[in-house]
Amino acid sequence: MSKVFSKVILCEYLLSMERGDGQIKKNQMILVDENKIHSVGPVPQTLPEGKEIIRLNNHLVCPGLINTHTHLPMVLFRGLGDHLTLQRWLEEIIFPLEKKMVNPEFIRVGTELALLELIKNGITTVCDMYFHTPVMAGLFESYGLRGVLAVDMLSSFSDWKKDLDDLCDTYKESQRVHPAIACHAPYTCDADLLKLSAEESQKRNLPISIHVAETEWEISEIKKQYGKTPVAHLKDCGVIGPHSIFVHCVYLNEEDMDLMAETNTPLSYNPESNMKLGSGVAPILRAMEKGITVSMGTDGAASNNDLNLFTEMDTGAKLQKLKNPSKTVKAKDIFSMVTTSAAKALGLSDSIGKIQAGFFADIIALNLNHPHLYPRHDLLNHLVYSASGREVDFVMCHGKVLMKDAEIQGVDVFRIYAEAEMIKEKIKETV
Amino acid sequence: MSKVFSKVILCEYLLSMERGDGQIKKNQMILVDENKIHSVGPVPQTLPEGKEIIRLNNHLVCPGLINTHTHLPMVLFRGLGDHLTLQRWLEEIIFPLEKKMVNPEFIRVGTELALLELIKNGITTVCDMYFHTPVMAGLFESYGLRGVLAVDMLSSFSDWKKDLDDLCDTYKESQRVHPAIACHAPYTCDADLLKLSAEESQKRNLPISIHVAETEWEISEIKKQYGKTPVAHLKDCGVIGPHSIFVHCVYLNEEDMDLMAETNTPLSYNPESNMKLGSGVAPILRAMEKGITVSMGTDGAASNNDLNLFTEMDTGAKLQKLKNPSKTVKAKDIFSMVTTSAAKALGLSDSIGKIQAGFFADIIALNLNHPHLYPRHDLLNHLVYSASGREVDFVMCHGKVLMKDAEIQGVDVFRIYAEAEMIKEKIKETV
Repeated sequence: MSKVFSKVILCEYLLSMERGDGQIKKNQMILVDENKIHSVGPVPQTLPEGKEIIRLNNHLVCPGLINTHTHLPMVLFRGLGDHLTLQRWLEEIIFPLEKKMVNPEFIRVGTELALLELIKNGITTVCDMYFHTPVMAGLFESYGLRGVLAVDMLSSFSDWKKDLDDLCDTYKESQRVHPAIACHAPYTCDADLLKLSAEESQKRNLPISIHVAETEWEISEIKKQYGKTPVAHLKDCGVIGPHSIFVHCVYLNEEDMDLMAETNTPLSYNPESNMKLGSGVAPILRAMEKGITVSMGTDGAASNNDLNLFTEMDTGAKLQKLKNPSKTVKAKDIFSMVTTSAAKALGLSDSIGKIQAGFFADIIALNLNHPHLYPRHDLLNHLVYSASGREVDFVMCHGKVLMKDAEIQGVDVFRIYAEAEMIKEKIKETV
Repeated sequence: MSKVFSKVILCEYLLSMERGDGQIKKNQMILVDENKIHSVGPVPQTLPEGKEIIRLNNHLVCPGLINTHTHLPMVLFRGLGDHLTLQRWLEEIIFPLEKKMVNPEFIRVGTELALLELIKNGITTVCDMYFHTPVMAGLFESYGLRGVLAVDMLSSFSDWKKDLDDLCDTYKESQRVHPAIACHAPYTCDADLLKLSAEESQKRNLPISIHVAETEWEISEIKKQYGKTPVAHLKDCGVIGPHSIFVHCVYLNEEDMDLMAETNTPLSYNPESNMKLGSGVAPILRAMEKGITVSMGTDGAASNNDLNLFTEMDTGAKLQKLKNPSKTVKAKDIFSMVTTSAAKALGLSDSIGKIQAGFFADIIALNLNHPHLYPRHDLLNHLVYSASGREVDFVMCHGKVLMKDAEIQGVDVFRIYAEAEMIKEKIKETV
């Protein structure tokens, strides 16, 4: 008897990123075996047997997108203090609100709302940094998304050690939920806490996520305190290397970049958040020239104001063109920031970021029947500069179909919208 | 017998822009009488009679958006030369392609494709600058959109005088198609042509649209030729004033802005195009402080790569925050750039840009049932920073319903997609 595959996916256009060259092939078939990709190749004359045949005519199929920096539950603060710069926005709006609002129920509703938005926008993996991480982890499990979920070392809302032990125990065998450590920033975490984080990271073999060199203010603050740049200071504390994801990196000097390159420390570029908070423009092209792995993140929705990597790619590419008018920005490099390079940044480059035999089946499809995607001179350019997220109508993560015909599967979205509105009322009473 | 209205529109949320304060009211009713708004007010206990009752529950209703700078048929060049800067992109890709491709058939297909995209994104009025303008005008008439359509004085593809006479004759009585004059730029139009344009504009009472101070290269080129700034040079040629729309204005000095303010010359801010072509960031906040009317445009899709004012508002607002980290950027000011201020820039502030009794019925609605629009702390902020265009599912222009339940009415979109692909093949043979 011949093998029966879990899913047989027929793609009119496929951008597998297998060789990282941005090549798009026509009429390809993906065979999915439980949670993994069995094989990818041209559609044969006779189709193999499958429990489900998914025909994606007039669709562009690509790897599920990877968002390397989020604070998911902050969707509940979306649209608050939109006119403020980073320090005022944190001190006047976010920190006081978090103090009053953050509890497991807030985290649950915020995470559920955020997961809906991620699915709608074709994001199947995120690296998140927030509080009550075990609550979030449970939702990633039940929704079926992939998460590198970092426990904040600085939290007054929950006990990092307890949360980290809990996560490490519960998800030891999980292929989808990966515990991690979050240090907020060099200016909020003192040197002792950074060193402790580095020790914990090594002991438990966990990645660390940290905001680095986000503003000029931070640069002068760290210079004042430690007499060096944030990157140099982090190196001295042991927070550097392939498992330390440096987020923002707006103000890096040449030595900082050399250090990151030598130590294989990946970078998460968050252009929209950096613009909205008036922080600056990260030297991404220079970082790539130095060989640093550059991925992309949306940051929290409170400073973006969405969790959309399509608009992020568009803006992020244009921002680099603005900063470097004489240099070439290639669409394939931008797309790698949300697929292959993002997988590498998270230490998952052997299992996600490509549609390739043996990789997990994280697959999305964009419906190409939109006026803004015609004519089809170059679908990769359209992905980066024209797509807005609305095109995604099919999402699979770890072999499970999360969205089909633009409908999120098995979730009562209206229940979540109503709960989000209830939290809004509570926030109103609070402010 | 009581009056029967053409349309009775029931809005759960209404942003009328009537007083320009960005206020959103709940449970409002708009009565439409043929092509005009008869009245706006709270939903009464007994509904008036209407040929059609349109219930927009869970929708935000607002004025149709106004895009003050486009080159619509250039959608057919979408995605070509995406890595190049302005001068190379024009000289290596666009100008040679236009030479070979631009003919009435190209203009027809390009315009039809662009009109679909405009409708999908809730844009009901554009100010366009391109060639074979009478062909475009006919399509605006048949599709039912509003256009200020500028005939290029520099065209080698069609005779400006013939086209302008034709437009002025045919659309003398039109309330939707408004002829205008386009001068490409101070560096492509010599002083004589600019003066002639000013004369024609006065004689025929038509607005002029012109690219101004887009790049540093242009500033030095005009300085070299005329010993002054582009704005000062245009003033000397008579191309200035409330009917001259200055597009881009990336490099304005204080005197240029004073001149524009004194003469009530409006500005069209095209942030995404300016980023993508590496041109720079226009001093929009300073221009507003000076009292200049600032509107917004997408530019052609070849340098954007879409015709989407939602993503343009988002990026345009963020870009100003990046340029002016200590200043306040208000969402209502950004939204006015695509409604009230845009109407003013086009000389149409008595008839469009607001949902108000006596104004033309240009009305759009956004479906709020999207995770990225929850919770609803501030729907105006969501419009500017979170919406991506996908939310628009109802569009009315001049009293005619162009899109309903996200379906464009009465147009075979697949015919247009196929024609766009055929043009793509011709472009391929050409390059």
